[in-house]
Amino acid sequence: MIKASVYVTLRPGVLDPQGETIKSSLNDLGFSEVAGVRAGKYLELDLDTDDVAAARSRLDDMCGRLLSNPVIEDYTVEIEERRGS
Amino acid sequence: MIKASVYVTLRPGVLDPQGETIKSSLNDLGFSEVAGVRAGKYLELDLDTDDVAAARSRLDDMCGRLLSNPVIEDYTVEIEERRGS
Repeated sequence: MIKASVYVTLRPGVLDPQGETIKSSLNDLGFSEVAGVRAGKYLELDLDTDDVAAARSRLDDMCGRLLSNPVIEDYTVEIEERRGS
Repeated sequence: MIKASVYVTLRPGVLDPQGETIKSSLNDLGFSEVAGVRAGKYLELDLDTDDVAAARSRLDDMCGRLLSNPVIEDYTVEIEERRGS
């Protein structure tokens, strides 16, 4: 069993209204040091395999096909831990 | 300037319909090894300060007040890098 983390973030230059709203709200709450916020997605996946290399390739495929929108988003995959089979 | 990453995840035991839907969709696409998905939020914040200890305390405060719902969510804060003042 492999546990993987996937971070999906907007590409630089892509407008992020959600991040802007969070930034404004934090500023309004008194957190004036917040100069910018970018919002993204964080996914934890449990994979029923022990082959880390194959899992990495499959995760790339998942990100390209479903988990991210390659036109406007980047993704990062981390294989966090490997538990006993 | 400090760059911080905040991960907000649902607490264990809290139902995650979004994660369930992503899992089902991945399974339907042929990724049968996906045994579970948990969906969360990922935020990148730029903070206009150089005091890492103070920033950490302020980030805890932000998470408790706006960025997460402490009843059903956990958060993790990482101060990623510190750039020149």
